[in-house]
Amino acid sequence: MFKADIALGSRRCGMRNVCVIAGGMSKWGVRNASQRDMFQEAGRACFLDNPHLTNKDVDGLIVSSAYTERCSFQTHLAPLVAEHLGIKPRSVCIRVELLCASGSSGIITAYGLIKAGVADVVMVIGGEKLYMPQRWEVFYSEMASVDHDWDGAQGLGLPPSAFAMVAKQHMKQYGTTEEQMAMVSVKNRRNGLNNPMGQFQEPITLETALNAKAIVRPMKLYDCCPITDGAAAVILACEEKARALTDKPLVYIRGTGQASLHNMSANMPNWTTWESLKIAAEQAYKAARVKPSDIHVAQTHDCFTISEIIEYEDLGFCPKGDGGRFVQDGLSDFGGKVPVNTDGGLLSCGHPFGATGIRQAIEITKQLRGDAARQVEGATTGLTHNLSGFIAAHTVIVYGREA
Amino acid sequence: MFKADIALGSRRCGMRNVCVIAGGMSKWGVRNASQRDMFQEAGRACFLDNPHLTNKDVDGLIVSSAYTERCSFQTHLAPLVAEHLGIKPRSVCIRVELLCASGSSGIITAYGLIKAGVADVVMVIGGEKLYMPQRWEVFYSEMASVDHDWDGAQGLGLPPSAFAMVAKQHMKQYGTTEEQMAMVSVKNRRNGLNNPMGQFQEPITLETALNAKAIVRPMKLYDCCPITDGAAAVILACEEKARALTDKPLVYIRGTGQASLHNMSANMPNWTTWESLKIAAEQAYKAARVKPSDIHVAQTHDCFTISEIIEYEDLGFCPKGDGGRFVQDGLSDFGGKVPVNTDGGLLSCGHPFGATGIRQAIEITKQLRGDAARQVEGATTGLTHNLSGFIAAHTVIVYGREA
Repeated sequence: MFKADIALGSRRCGMRNVCVIAGGMSKWGVRNASQRDMFQEAGRACFLDNPHLTNKDVDGLIVSSAYTERCSFQTHLAPLVAEHLGIKPRSVCIRVELLCASGSSGIITAYGLIKAGVADVVMVIGGEKLYMPQRWEVFYSEMASVDHDWDGAQGLGLPPSAFAMVAKQHMKQYGTTEEQMAMVSVKNRRNGLNNPMGQFQEPITLETALNAKAIVRPMKLYDCCPITDGAAAVILACEEKARALTDKPLVYIRGTGQASLHNMSANMPNWTTWESLKIAAEQAYKAARVKPSDIHVAQTHDCFTISEIIEYEDLGFCPKGDGGRFVQDGLSDFGGKVPVNTDGGLLSCGHPFGATGIRQAIEITKQLRGDAARQVEGATTGLTHNLSGFIAAHTVIVYGREA
Repeated sequence: MFKADIALGSRRCGMRNVCVIAGGMSKWGVRNASQRDMFQEAGRACFLDNPHLTNKDVDGLIVSSAYTERCSFQTHLAPLVAEHLGIKPRSVCIRVELLCASGSSGIITAYGLIKAGVADVVMVIGGEKLYMPQRWEVFYSEMASVDHDWDGAQGLGLPPSAFAMVAKQHMKQYGTTEEQMAMVSVKNRRNGLNNPMGQFQEPITLETALNAKAIVRPMKLYDCCPITDGAAAVILACEEKARALTDKPLVYIRGTGQASLHNMSANMPNWTTWESLKIAAEQAYKAARVKPSDIHVAQTHDCFTISEIIEYEDLGFCPKGDGGRFVQDGLSDFGGKVPVNTDGGLLSCGHPFGATGIRQAIEITKQLRGDAARQVEGATTGLTHNLSGFIAAHTVIVYGREA
């Protein structure tokens, strides 16, 4: 399918294709390291991933970070990271922020700039330092992430309370159970065993998940992703440069979508059907000329177990309301219809905001290259989904491997 | 020249042209208004500028802001501003940050995404609330803007000290005088009389400028741009949409460049020749297929008077070292070789970081349309230059009007 697409794409609009040619992560977890240390680790891992390229080949740098001002006391991050990695940007050098979806937003930005011919080879690097003695900076940052005049004033700045309300409503509306939610966590913790760079490499049982302490009912400890330090980086290139700079099969970005219909909770059109996700997915599928059934592997934003369940539905992997049964029937596991969060997702890897969308891109690239720690056999089309805020903005990216 | 260019461009790469189709500002100055109030004012002014378009026509939103986390206690700004302006982004919805050059970085990002076909009609809106009772948040933000482990620790976080060193060296190396620097300020304050939305509408005399109190010698009060609250917005569109949505002459983005060779002061290759600016300008001129002598009007980053003098040189408007004489001879004034900062620049309008690059785009668009408050006669090609950090990153954009 993709060979025809490339030809068609080239004929139709004369635009350049964009490929992922390298990826790497720092160790994620509770780190005795600064944000800049972890950016260096991720940048280095990214260059080590592809011995055919060096920092001299990179002409642009995009840094994705949400809490850098308060939690790392550092603004104007892109020139600083460029300097630390020995990159001398001459096309683009910016930071992109969309809270928890900063990483995928950085990738969409790089994709557009490369496709447009503004840049040729761009590193997208993201990360956060969130564990720190001054806990109040993380707390302030959380409070400043929702609309502070509205949701902040109502105490909705801490995500578990928001997602607990979503979970309750989904349970009531569609009969989703706490067991089904726990199954998401069990699956992703099991998948995380394959990922030594993630925060956890410990499986959990359904019983452990169900008996864990409550955070905000019905969300219990393992229904929530942890607080994590970490960084991740990918390098994107136009197809011509990509051919020269890697001998691995090329993995293309085929389509992107990003949508935001609301910001504050009172304006959320529907709590259990995420309209912005549906629009973002539709845009990405349309641009990539694929259907949900063409997706062989996906990394979705499992900040909470209920999120992944709703994402199965609104990405079109199963009918609305069937998300709970989808995980229960093993359809999102290896061997199922669409293996989801094959590297452990947020629930096992953790969630250093600016890095998450980039980690997703790294895993999809490995899966489509056939290089993954645990491989989805024959995967040629993959997808990432990243969300931010009070389920306010959604980013979907479709990736495809050359035939 | 441009008619041929468009045809050539279309034939050569099949890419879409990108136009500015609306622009507007809030009142800038010391404002008893929040950042979100000013975003609404700027967004409204932008829609009022073009009666042919509404918020329904806009499919993407990019917000440019540097100090929003601390100074406005608000992260995840793009979905919030979208909600306030009634925009429902379905292509892109992100914040872009490159400190003082956040505005032009937002424009480059929108340009790339539209050119690539990822988005069609994008608002780029930027702004800051910098005057506030809690002065320490502005101070902390300044300290976090330079490399905090290096320049921050050395007290180089406050810009006047950095630019005073640059000025001293330029004076020593090229014979630039304090009078010549003051002439930049006198010119820009005079130009600012045409701009009711800027912070100042008061001319100053050379004597006033020279006798003003010292900030850091040789920089005196009027050599430095003020601290300012404000916001500004432009709407960019692909040419096809632009034709449908405006009956004014189309103003195109012809080329962009952004470069950063260093971040911390110790790595600055040269204090009086800004290599990153030269690279950014070269990239933008090359993409636009113009030479410095083709530029009819320019808005440059006059954060300090010495900056504008060095910019004349490194943008190629005059030979190296002649910047002081360039302003003294009136070559950067109306009727001169290249009128610079025709709307007052940072020295008269002020500098709410994320908004500055956008204000520059608004003035260039007006000049090229023939709509400016004080018009550079026959201007068809213009340029903006925006810098950030310890002269660390530079952004140059070339604009051209349809023939």
